[in-house]
Amino acid sequence: MSSPAIQTTPAAHGEDALTALVALVREDLDACNRQILERMQSPVALIPQLAAHLIAAGGKRLRPLLTLAAARMCGYRGDRHVRLAACVEFIHTATLLHDDVVDESDLRRGRASANAVFGNQASVLVGDFLFARSFELMVEDGSLEVLRILCSASATIAEGEVLQLVIQNDTSSTEAQYLDVIEGKTAALFAAATRVGAVVAGRPVSEAEALDSYGRNLGVAFQLVDDALDYSAEQEKLGKTVGDDFREGKITLPVLLAFSRGDEEEKAFWRRVLEDRQQEEADLPHALALMQKHRAFADTIARARDYGDRAIAALAGFPDNAEKRALIDVVEFCIDRAR
Amino acid sequence: MSSPAIQTTPAAHGEDALTALVALVREDLDACNRQILERMQSPVALIPQLAAHLIAAGGKRLRPLLTLAAARMCGYRGDRHVRLAACVEFIHTATLLHDDVVDESDLRRGRASANAVFGNQASVLVGDFLFARSFELMVEDGSLEVLRILCSASATIAEGEVLQLVIQNDTSSTEAQYLDVIEGKTAALFAAATRVGAVVAGRPVSEAEALDSYGRNLGVAFQLVDDALDYSAEQEKLGKTVGDDFREGKITLPVLLAFSRGDEEEKAFWRRVLEDRQQEEADLPHALALMQKHRAFADTIARARDYGDRAIAALAGFPDNAEKRALIDVVEFCIDRAR
Repeated sequence: MSSPAIQTTPAAHGEDALTALVALVREDLDACNRQILERMQSPVALIPQLAAHLIAAGGKRLRPLLTLAAARMCGYRGDRHVRLAACVEFIHTATLLHDDVVDESDLRRGRASANAVFGNQASVLVGDFLFARSFELMVEDGSLEVLRILCSASATIAEGEVLQLVIQNDTSSTEAQYLDVIEGKTAALFAAATRVGAVVAGRPVSEAEALDSYGRNLGVAFQLVDDALDYSAEQEKLGKTVGDDFREGKITLPVLLAFSRGDEEEKAFWRRVLEDRQQEEADLPHALALMQKHRAFADTIARARDYGDRAIAALAGFPDNAEKRALIDVVEFCIDRAR
Repeated sequence: MSSPAIQTTPAAHGEDALTALVALVREDLDACNRQILERMQSPVALIPQLAAHLIAAGGKRLRPLLTLAAARMCGYRGDRHVRLAACVEFIHTATLLHDDVVDESDLRRGRASANAVFGNQASVLVGDFLFARSFELMVEDGSLEVLRILCSASATIAEGEVLQLVIQNDTSSTEAQYLDVIEGKTAALFAAATRVGAVVAGRPVSEAEALDSYGRNLGVAFQLVDDALDYSAEQEKLGKTVGDDFREGKITLPVLLAFSRGDEEEKAFWRRVLEDRQQEEADLPHALALMQKHRAFADTIARARDYGDRAIAALAGFPDNAEKRALIDVVEFCIDRAR
């Protein structure tokens, strides 16, 4: 099918980077997946059914992979990081379930979303369950420092999501507000996921902060690419629909760039489609054309690459090892999705 | 306005019991309310706005009152219980926000529900925020034992809510399932709220378990009365609408009793209105008449009184003091709401 979306060249290097990371922590990841399956169980059968729809459907397990690799890079030899990686995935899954309710999404990971199959009510409540269960797992781990990191990240995620709701449909939103949104809704969990790697390994605060910085910058880069991809033909290969954000009136960087660089007529267009939500069939192709004209897509990716470079720089103080190289390559994976 | 609901005599003794409890822990409660207001703040203004709509609107603060009184009854002289009481109220508020989304409620505490004013999306996300914030407060408190109790209660609440969703509209649900639902969605937090009172006071496990039993039985009694009140004229005085559960097809004990004691024609009626959700105007009065005929309302209250007695019995081992007497009287308050 011919798509009106921005054409990009297929990813190559990126997928390999993720494959290499998975291979490196294969045993840990298998153990983590077992923990996830075991601990999402409940006497209330609908809970594992709904959770399995999303969790067992796959997903990249990117966040738990980051926890596993960060801990190993720090020289950790125990197995606490496996349970904490499962916590991170539970928090992520809970937010996905609630996001899909909030966004009224029908699709997730290329199949019907949980709310589309099981209803909004069950999605809200099973999200709550997974959230609570992740805290139970942390309590079992027993580190107050880890609890502090992941509880704080959870509150920040919710703040980012609420802010996103507040600035939605508002073309006068600023880039600073947009960055606050993605630092909250996405980067906070990436930062926490990598930071706990240093904490379980008992490394000094400076290393925990370096890994926090790596995760936070990677998370921002990841979300920037995600927001660009929403306007790219690559999106369809990821099992998503081009223009979802556009239809919801979500204010993302590609939109903010095209808006700020547009003339009055173009600004009026953006206000009509995103603020008034008056959209016709020809509007998405027109929006894509404006983005190309103003290099909004390319500059969003360039910005992502910038954050990716900062993520890599944050790892400078760590000794060279296979996990460090894998974490550097993951940055490429996150950005190359848009190529 | 003349109501078709079951007429009951007004509460008297009950309100006094709550007033006495409030007077007894007045300073602690004021400190707790300050904590609540302070810790629901966020740079994202919609969060305190929405939270204030529900929290500042009042509510009885029953659960935090239980934590405060239980700690004092156990001889606790510090102030950790104040923060933990705020945690309990945050968890309760988060579940109320999500409940109202799940139930599509328009009313809460006699005014428009948060979801009706701010939308479902904001209610889901601010609920998540309050939930995460409550865990942050627990981490600040620093007791893994308290964290274990409240995390476990939170997971159990979600399980109870999901089970309620599963058996909703199903008249073949059993009393055992119904009890599982209310032990999860209501009694688990009551039990945790009172148990942490013993834990902060450093009392032995036997006393923590006794307070757990007090809270759990009180919580079941409380919910039984709530479910009876849904069919009582008293409901309107509480700022709620008679028959909400009926319209949603919620399976509660009054319904299960009337159904199981009904003849085939009555069973067909219950199936039509609750399973098929085919309801006409005359159906609620008819349902109320069937409940009176089969003593479903009175027997639900009797059952609540039974659980209330067990709650009081659980306090037997504690030395007599003002807080213990107040906790005993609170049982009366919870049950007398239905008189």
